Amino acid sequence: MQRSLFVYNTLSKKKELFVPVNAPHVGMYVCGPTVYGDAHLGHARPAITFDLVFRTLKHLGYKVRYVRNITDVGHLENDADAGEDKVEKKARLDELEPMEVVQYYINRYHKSMDLLNVLPPSIEPLASGHIIEQQLMIKKIIENGFAYEKNGSVYFDVEKYNNQYHYGKLSGRVLDDLLSYTRELEGQSEKRKSYDFALWKKASPEHIMKWPSDWSVGFPGWHLECSVMSARYLGDRFDIHGGGMDLLFPHHECEIAQTVAATGHDAVKYWIHNNMITINGQKMGKSLGNFITLEEFFTGNHIHLEQAYRPMTIRFFILLAHYRSTLDFSNEALKAADKGLEKLLNASKKIQSLKVSSKNTVDLSSLEKNCYEALCDDFNSPVLISHLFEGVRIINSVNDGNEFINQENLDYLKKIFELFIENILGLKAETSSGNNQLTDSLIDFLLQLRIKAKANKDFQTSDAIRNELNKLGVEVKDTKIGFEWKII
Amino acid sequence: MQRSLFVYNTLSKKKELFVPVNAPHVGMYVCGPTVYGDAHLGHARPAITFDLVFRTLKHLGYKVRYVRNITDVGHLENDADAGEDKVEKKARLDELEPMEVVQYYINRYHKSMDLLNVLPPSIEPLASGHIIEQQLMIKKIIENGFAYEKNGSVYFDVEKYNNQYHYGKLSGRVLDDLLSYTRELEGQSEKRKSYDFALWKKASPEHIMKWPSDWSVGFPGWHLECSVMSARYLGDRFDIHGGGMDLLFPHHECEIAQTVAATGHDAVKYWIHNNMITINGQKMGKSLGNFITLEEFFTGNHIHLEQAYRPMTIRFFILLAHYRSTLDFSNEALKAADKGLEKLLNASKKIQSLKVSSKNTVDLSSLEKNCYEALCDDFNSPVLISHLFEGVRIINSVNDGNEFINQENLDYLKKIFELFIENILGLKAETSSGNNQLTDSLIDFLLQLRIKAKANKDFQTSDAIRNELNKLGVEVKDTKIGFEWKII
Repeated sequence: MQRSLFVYNTLSKKKELFVPVNAPHVGMYVCGPTVYGDAHLGHARPAITFDLVFRTLKHLGYKVRYVRNITDVGHLENDADAGEDKVEKKARLDELEPMEVVQYYINRYHKSMDLLNVLPPSIEPLASGHIIEQQLMIKKIIENGFAYEKNGSVYFDVEKYNNQYHYGKLSGRVLDDLLSYTRELEGQSEKRKSYDFALWKKASPEHIMKWPSDWSVGFPGWHLECSVMSARYLGDRFDIHGGGMDLLFPHHECEIAQTVAATGHDAVKYWIHNNMITINGQKMGKSLGNFITLEEFFTGNHIHLEQAYRPMTIRFFILLAHYRSTLDFSNEALKAADKGLEKLLNASKKIQSLKVSSKNTVDLSSLEKNCYEALCDDFNSPVLISHLFEGVRIINSVNDGNEFINQENLDYLKKIFELFIENILGLKAETSSGNNQLTDSLIDFLLQLRIKAKANKDFQTSDAIRNELNKLGVEVKDTKIGFEWKII
Repeated sequence: MQRSLFVYNTLSKKKELFVPVNAPHVGMYVCGPTVYGDAHLGHARPAITFDLVFRTLKHLGYKVRYVRNITDVGHLENDADAGEDKVEKKARLDELEPMEVVQYYINRYHKSMDLLNVLPPSIEPLASGHIIEQQLMIKKIIENGFAYEKNGSVYFDVEKYNNQYHYGKLSGRVLDDLLSYTRELEGQSEKRKSYDFALWKKASPEHIMKWPSDWSVGFPGWHLECSVMSARYLGDRFDIHGGGMDLLFPHHECEIAQTVAATGHDAVKYWIHNNMITINGQKMGKSLGNFITLEEFFTGNHIHLEQAYRPMTIRFFILLAHYRSTLDFSNEALKAADKGLEKLLNASKKIQSLKVSSKNTVDLSSLEKNCYEALCDDFNSPVLISHLFEGVRIINSVNDGNEFINQENLDYLKKIFELFIENILGLKAETSSGNNQLTDSLIDFLLQLRIKAKANKDFQTSDAIRNELNKLGVEVKDTKIGFEWKII
C-alpha cells in the first residue's frame, strides 16, 4: 500500500488518489450478469476489467471483499392461459422453472469466466436471495418520504428526491430533459412522472417469481438489488462500485438515489465504468445480429468469426485497450492480439533458458517502475503491456546473442514478468491441446532424437520427426544452440 | 421408460416399482452440503449415489428436475464483545462475513464435484435465499396448530402432531423412547418437550445471519429449509427425496412432520438413503481425527493416506459398493479400486483397436440385459460393474487372439461400454498428466520410431525410446501386432 494508486472516478470526472474508507480493507461491488442467456463479449469486458482491479488491489496489499451480483429476478412468465389452478393443484414439475434456467446459465457463466482466468469474486449474491432486505429498504425509503404506493406497486419519487438531493449527479442528466424525452407515456402509467422508477411491482398472475410483501405479491424493481446487496455485504459506505458504462444511466443513477433516500448519504466513494465493445464499429446487440457469445469465440462457430479464438486471446484483446476506451472487435484485431500474446508468452517462456553471462549489457532499471506507473495510473493495461514488450525485446536480444544478461538482472526480469503477466494481467500459457509437462517432455525428447539422427546423417528420420511434429501442430525452429518449439 | 425400475423405499422398507407422480417428469431433492468446511469422503458418497440415480433416470427417458440444496444458514457468530455498536457504526468490511466463507466453500465444493464427474443438479438453492418461503411455512404450521411461539422462537409441537399423524414413520423411532432418552434437558428449555424442534430461533446479538420476522429477528431451524425448498421447486407432491442415512433421523423425520403439518399430506413418494463410509472400520468424524477431505485424497496429503488417489478412483471405489451397504475405506481397498478401474478403462480403450473377424466366437447376448437388470434393481452398481468385467474378459480374449469378434458384435460391445461406463457410471479416462490427443499422438509416433529402429537393428535408439517413456511414466507393452501403452 506504499504505492499511490489513481483511479478515474465517474462521479467527479477526474482521476483521484485512491484512499479506502477503511484501509487496509477495500469493498468493491460490480454489477454482474443477468442470467437468462449465454455470456457474450460484452460480459467479458467488465469481468476482465474488474478482475484487473481486484488483482491489482490485492497485489498492493489491500484486503479486498469483491461482491459481484447475479441478477436472477427476471421476467419469465407462465403461459397466461395455464392460470393459477394448475400451479396450485398440480406438481410444479411441468412448469418452466426460472431457477432451473438461472442455474443453467450461472454454471455456463462460471465456466466461461474460468476459461478467461477471471478470479471468482468473494461473494456472488443472487437478487432472489435478498427479497427481505430489499423490502426493508423500500420501507425505509417510503418512511423517509421518497416513494409512493399505487395499486400494490411502489415507485421512487424522483422529483421529490431531486428537490432535496441531486438526481443526475453521476450521469449529468437533467430532470426536465428526461421529462420531455418521455412525455408521451404520461397518463397511462401508475407513475406520477415518467422518470419515476419501480421499487416494487405487483405481479400479474402469470408472473412466476413473486413474493408476498406489505404492498402486494410481487417482485422488486431491478435497480434495487444492487443498492441492497452492496450495503448488505460492504456496509453503507464502501470504496468502489463498478460496471459497464451502459449501466451508468439509469441503473447507477437510481442506485445512488435509492441509497441516499434510505440512508441520507452516498455509499460509494469511487465509481468506475468500463467502456463498451463495438463490432466492426457498430453497437453490439441481439437485434443487430452481431451478438457473439464467448463460447462462439472459443469454438469459432459464428458467421462473423473467421476462426476460433483462445480464451487468453480474448482476455489479452480486452486488456490491449484501456478500460475507458471503446474497443472495436474485428477478426483482424483479434488475430493481432493473438500474435502479440504469443510473442509475450514465448518471451516469458524463453527467460527460463536464457544464457547467464558474467557481463551485462541490458538496462532494466526503469522496467519495473514503468510497469507500476502504468498500472497505478487508472489501471492502464495497454501502457503496461507496451513496457512488457520492451522486456520482450531484451529477452529476444539476449537469446539471439546480441546482448548479455547477468544472474541478478535475469532473476529480476523473471520476477517482473511473472508478477505482471501472470498475477496482474492474469495471462497464462495455454493451448487448445496439450500444454502439460508430459507433452513438453515428449516433444523435447523427439527433438533430441532428431539432433542425433542429423548427427548420424539419418536425414530420413530427422525429416520424419520434423514433419510429424508440424502435422501435430508443433512448430520447430532451429537455433544456434539447439531448437525451439511451440504448439500452434 | 419402458424399463421397470425398482427402488428401495426407506419409508416402506421394501423395493418398490418406480412410478413417478407426474411422468415423464421426475422431481428429486437431495440434501446437499453445509458449506462451512471442505468436502470430505462422506460428501462424495451421496453426491455420487444420486448422480448415478440422476443419470439413470435421464437415460431411462425421464425429464428430471434435480434439486440439491446448500445449507448456508449457519452459526457463525461475531465476537460478542464487539457488540452492536460496531456493527451499526462502522463499515462491515472488517467483520467476518458468513457469505464470504460460504462462497469460498461453495466454489471448492463445485471444483471437487467437477473432478468426481458429478453432474451439476438442475437447481442448487441456498437456505439463506428462501427466508420468506420458510416464514410462510412456519405461519401455516402455526395456523394448523402444530407449532407454538416462546420468547420470539417458534417450536414444532411433536406430541400434538403425533396425536393426529405419525411422528417416527420414516425412522421407526417411538416418541416415549425419545422422551426418556432426553429427559435430563427438561425444564431448562423453552421447548415444551425435549423432542420438539425449532422452526424459528430468535437470534442472540452476536449472531450474524438473521432476518426480521413476525416473531423476532432470527433465523430458521435447520430442518425447515428442505421442506420449503423441495416444495418451492418440485411442488407439494414429488418423487424422490435422497440423502445420507445419518440424516434419516431427526432431519428427514422432521421434514415429513413439517410438510404434513403444513399441507395435511406427505410430499415424498420414495425416500432413498445412502449408507455411511467408515474408515478402517471406525466411524468418520472430525473429533476422531480420521476425517479426510477430498482434496487430501487427490493430493495424498494426509497421515492415513499412503498415496494420492485420482478422483475417478474415488468415484469407482464408491460405486463398487451398493449404496445401501456400508463402505469401509482403507488404502488397500482404494488401491484395489484403482487397479480395477484401470482394467476397465484399458479394456474400454482397447475396443477401438480390436481386430474385426468374419467369424465370431464371443457370446454377448446377455451382457446388455444383465447390465440393465443390475442398474434397475435399485441402482446395483457393483453387480453392474461385475457384468462389465465379463465384457473386459471378452475384449482381452479377442485382443490376445484367443477369441474372434465380428463387426456387429464389436459395435454392440462399443455401445454397451460407452453407455454404462461413461454415461451411467460416469467414469472417464483421466491421468494426472496429459491424456489429450496430442500426447497420445506423440507417444504413438515415438513407438513407431522405435519399431523402425528395431527393424534397422538400432537397438540403442529403440531402448532409449522405451527407457525415456518409462521415465516419463508411460508403460510400453509389446504385442503380437505392435504395441500397447498406458500412462501410469
